[in-house]
Amino acid sequence: MSATVAPSPELVFNSLLAFQRTAALKAAVELELFTAIDEGAVTVGDIAKRCASSERGTRILCDYLTIAGLLSKNGAQYALTPDSAVFLSKRSPAYLGTICDFLASPDIVRNFDDLAGTVRRGTVAPQANTVAGHEQQHWVTFARAMTPMMMPAAMGIADIVQIDAAGPTKVLDVAAGHGVFGIVLAQRNPRVDVVAVDWPGVLAVASENAAKMGVADRHRTLAGDAFSVEYGSGYDLVLLTNFLHHYDAATCTTLLRKSANALKPGGRAVILEFVPNEDRVTPPMAAGFSLTMLAGTPAGDAYTLAQLRQMTTDAGFTGGIAAHPLPTPETVVVATK
Amino acid sequence: MSATVAPSPELVFNSLLAFQRTAALKAAVELELFTAIDEGAVTVGDIAKRCASSERGTRILCDYLTIAGLLSKNGAQYALTPDSAVFLSKRSPAYLGTICDFLASPDIVRNFDDLAGTVRRGTVAPQANTVAGHEQQHWVTFARAMTPMMMPAAMGIADIVQIDAAGPTKVLDVAAGHGVFGIVLAQRNPRVDVVAVDWPGVLAVASENAAKMGVADRHRTLAGDAFSVEYGSGYDLVLLTNFLHHYDAATCTTLLRKSANALKPGGRAVILEFVPNEDRVTPPMAAGFSLTMLAGTPAGDAYTLAQLRQMTTDAGFTGGIAAHPLPTPETVVVATK
Repeated sequence: MSATVAPSPELVFNSLLAFQRTAALKAAVELELFTAIDEGAVTVGDIAKRCASSERGTRILCDYLTIAGLLSKNGAQYALTPDSAVFLSKRSPAYLGTICDFLASPDIVRNFDDLAGTVRRGTVAPQANTVAGHEQQHWVTFARAMTPMMMPAAMGIADIVQIDAAGPTKVLDVAAGHGVFGIVLAQRNPRVDVVAVDWPGVLAVASENAAKMGVADRHRTLAGDAFSVEYGSGYDLVLLTNFLHHYDAATCTTLLRKSANALKPGGRAVILEFVPNEDRVTPPMAAGFSLTMLAGTPAGDAYTLAQLRQMTTDAGFTGGIAAHPLPTPETVVVATK
Repeated sequence: MSATVAPSPELVFNSLLAFQRTAALKAAVELELFTAIDEGAVTVGDIAKRCASSERGTRILCDYLTIAGLLSKNGAQYALTPDSAVFLSKRSPAYLGTICDFLASPDIVRNFDDLAGTVRRGTVAPQANTVAGHEQQHWVTFARAMTPMMMPAAMGIADIVQIDAAGPTKVLDVAAGHGVFGIVLAQRNPRVDVVAVDWPGVLAVASENAAKMGVADRHRTLAGDAFSVEYGSGYDLVLLTNFLHHYDAATCTTLLRKSANALKPGGRAVILEFVPNEDRVTPPMAAGFSLTMLAGTPAGDAYTLAQLRQMTTDAGFTGGIAAHPLPTPETVVVATK
């Protein structure tokens, strides 16, 4: 035990009360409080008016958000921080407020209600299994909520696979969700054709996005379960984005083998994942993601690069793998057949 | 907007996912994971065995707690941090694990389920009012859960009022809860007599503690609501610990006047409170406490020293007030009649 700093219960309190930070951010997004400040309401009175809220509640919430680093306060005036201006005001093109609807939705939070029980069992309770087929509505919510958050990663993938100069490219987008990973490839190269696999309700969101983003004519859907639907063959790229972490290594390897079989020789699997270092505790966001998988899946995890290398090799990707960290907390891993 | 640091969504994600920190700490306390490590189980296998848990769940939880700063990790071995060794191992005399039963209990967390609605209204929903008389069971839980956390403050109060050298002292302990504030005074001076006011179910906990701590013969109880029960008179000290924050300023002043009337001339009210600075955003824990009062009380707050001075003066404490910050996040304010 280090003697340099006197033990303080502050971290214990802050950890125990951390749920309040989630609640405060969700409330502020729901009330459009950051947008109100961005529009020029900077005192409690003006913010309360713009948010149709009480002065007591607005004052206490704004002070709390200041303590949490999401606002700044000077005298009686509040201001956005650089982060909240870019990500939490609806006036910003990088607005991320919609992610609250998924990442801290009552359904997701409920998965953590008996985390001790989950740790004891080592797997999720049947009713908290968010990857089971009957939970399709969950993934429709996901597809709608997470689109803005995924745009930077989608752009990153397009750069990494050098899609602009790739010529004719057949792309299979497995568990496509909102579809933006395939859609952005199609936007960046007019000779890209995408086949998006997901459940029917989720594919409706992907098709909607493909139409909005002007690539509907090159975006085809294939409804069904990613493990059982027939993919076809001759693809140049298979996208496996934010998908492997829901499953154990054996299941991931099975899916990767199915993907390899659908690829041309020399084709590539493009895997987007939270990839912790070998110590499994850094970097914090990628490593911490394992807990979300413990709470919400039967056997999912955040896999290290060594684990992903093993899975892809076992699945027949003999051309090696390359890791490309993104500016987001995720990493793009490209495995070549 | 400052241009020195590029905006990052990391703080937004971390805030939104903060509820996971609460869940992880609660699970670890429930599983006695910190105690297991303190007893020498330092690998996933050994910790899992000692906690009757799965290896997958134990590994992911230990890694998450490491990321959260509550454990350290070296290779495959986990260790307690100075904070978790002192406050989260049951082998430590300063063990605080019981506070999870109150501070992050399902009842309290539920108060934050519709925080946006509370901000709109400016007051708590009727079913979330934790200070109403019908919520007595809530305060029995409080009394049992919070005793260890309050010991340092109780010792601080005993020092501040110089109880050891005070001679015969009549103490009124208003809303006594676990009773430890009055009990410690009685322990420190054999001529202290305490009258503890609270609801009957809560007083049972206080009496239990008085017996355990060897002062039952000088610890009398007075059952009833603090606002309506007859206090008697001739007290040297009235303790108002963690009580005023539940009410608006006018109600606090009324209670302080009732307290002043029960005191001898020159008697003192000893107020334990979260006292934010005038900016209301520092220090973080005291200032942040306002949100708990927004979510759980009709009109409570964390009051600044200026507000407490106004209330006590209005209530007839003409001898001035003095503030004594504690090593805990709270402040002892002594007002003299």
